[in-house]
Amino acid sequence: MALSEFELIERYFTGIGARRDDVILTVGDDAALVAPHSGRRLALSTDTLVAGVHFPVDAPAEAVGYKALAVNLSDLAAMAAEPAWLLLALTLPRADPDWLERFAGGLAALANGAGMALVGGDISRGQAITVTVQVAGYADRPLRRDGARPGDGLYVSGTLGDAALGLQFWQGGQREGVDAHFLIERLHRPTPRTALARALADLATAAIDVSDGLLADAAHLAERSAVAVLIEPHRLPLSSALRRSASATHATTLALTGGDDYELCLSLPLDREKEAHARARQAGVSLTRIGRIEDGRGIRLISATGEALTYTHHGYKHFPVPSR
Amino acid sequence: MALSEFELIERYFTGIGARRDDVILTVGDDAALVAPHSGRRLALSTDTLVAGVHFPVDAPAEAVGYKALAVNLSDLAAMAAEPAWLLLALTLPRADPDWLERFAGGLAALANGAGMALVGGDISRGQAITVTVQVAGYADRPLRRDGARPGDGLYVSGTLGDAALGLQFWQGGQREGVDAHFLIERLHRPTPRTALARALADLATAAIDVSDGLLADAAHLAERSAVAVLIEPHRLPLSSALRRSASATHATTLALTGGDDYELCLSLPLDREKEAHARARQAGVSLTRIGRIEDGRGIRLISATGEALTYTHHGYKHFPVPSR
Repeated sequence: MALSEFELIERYFTGIGARRDDVILTVGDDAALVAPHSGRRLALSTDTLVAGVHFPVDAPAEAVGYKALAVNLSDLAAMAAEPAWLLLALTLPRADPDWLERFAGGLAALANGAGMALVGGDISRGQAITVTVQVAGYADRPLRRDGARPGDGLYVSGTLGDAALGLQFWQGGQREGVDAHFLIERLHRPTPRTALARALADLATAAIDVSDGLLADAAHLAERSAVAVLIEPHRLPLSSALRRSASATHATTLALTGGDDYELCLSLPLDREKEAHARARQAGVSLTRIGRIEDGRGIRLISATGEALTYTHHGYKHFPVPSR
Repeated sequence: MALSEFELIERYFTGIGARRDDVILTVGDDAALVAPHSGRRLALSTDTLVAGVHFPVDAPAEAVGYKALAVNLSDLAAMAAEPAWLLLALTLPRADPDWLERFAGGLAALANGAGMALVGGDISRGQAITVTVQVAGYADRPLRRDGARPGDGLYVSGTLGDAALGLQFWQGGQREGVDAHFLIERLHRPTPRTALARALADLATAAIDVSDGLLADAAHLAERSAVAVLIEPHRLPLSSALRRSASATHATTLALTGGDDYELCLSLPLDREKEAHARARQAGVSLTRIGRIEDGRGIRLISATGEALTYTHHGYKHFPVPSR
């Protein structure tokens, strides 16, 4: 049995996600057709996962499908956008029916939960599994990276550092026990903070999602907002599993520099903090103040006693470029 | 010198394409923000090129950048859509500044010509160069695959089979001479038929672009429209370069089964043919009647004397799947 790209799409990727009144024509033509609600702005984003780079080559297929969409939903969340449509471009060494079915299942579960529809895509042959998802959502009150102002507090959702330790556990074959299970789930199935972001859209001044590590991502927020971001590492929210599994120093390092947590980092006026906490509780997500915005540029770290701290490791840089 | 993904995007992929009044926020935030014109539908599509699969590993970087967008614009053309925005997801084994600059140049040239803006993207590390482009455009009068009706004529733009022979020439190192140059250009720089499609949008009943070979793509049109597509191979438009470089039989086989030409295949009522030709002339593209739509299903081939022909090779299928 040989399946063409066309037949693979028919079999595994047709009818995925929610039915939406703004989708006119879905998978199966040269392009999808959508009818955006009049007067509403759209947020557009794309992110790629490559086997062996962004996920372990032995990651469960369901987790790969889930995560490929989750990292994109995290970008929409960082804009406080309401998810609408997605396209999938999948590159595979071969068409393994079992893998494809589980991959599609992981993707579909999250798409349904987010109320979005898979409207198009492409399947190609290539050596490494490479998954590119592109998402679009309505952004009525977009949260940008460039609105942080001196005097704002700096906050993160959930806990940090879990996914980085989860990756170490997974790679080390340390997969048993409640803590390992929790940390590995955080790696494989990050929760996009869509509901939180939309609840805070009119309070927050800026937001970014934590994909490359807090230090790296907060630095982007600082640069785009032309401010200094002051972080107090002792305030970073750490999960019980992380605290139990790593020394305090190692846990804090992971929380500062580990990628893949897909929590939100955002700034908002300190006098709105109480309201923000109330809304976060309603959204079912913890929100922790981890620092503040100041005049200046770049990132500053200070200890609980107010001393300046330094870090040499500034998050994951993707490309070693030869000097020229 | 080590450049992060952030710095690579800043250096090579900022400000590419046209300035557009419907772009609010471009490359540099978690997502792009656009404001679609109210009441207009959007066509969305994505296509991936993998080195060694969709383009030769030694293809010029400019050609890779150009073609990655061109194949997507071809999908928009097949919907008669007006190009608006694109996102780029690029996977690379390493960041070669020279390659990136030339790749971005090829992409930018076509984006500018099409009046579209690069609004976002992603750069990842991975073994094989993999380029996924996602495009969006306004589709006020979309041409779908499912509207062909018995009695319509079947047409293609331009000439067929050139890119397939161009690939053979490129791979054989046969790159000198005016014919080789023409055929290789057709391979590396296909021309999306945007203007033609938009000129014919109110005449044509269905359209598909020829990416996998005429037989394979016309079969999709037949299936979606629930009709039979009758093709007369002796009518297929062949370039002078193809005629001079291949036997008549080989040339016709390439025109039927060769992929990568990115011409349009469309159906329209025979009594509108004259008007269609006039509009095609205005758009500067040839249009050739190559068959007709009939009752029934699937593809039929007939000779100049009306005899049925058979072909065993039905275009490129991407995936050999193990039987289970």
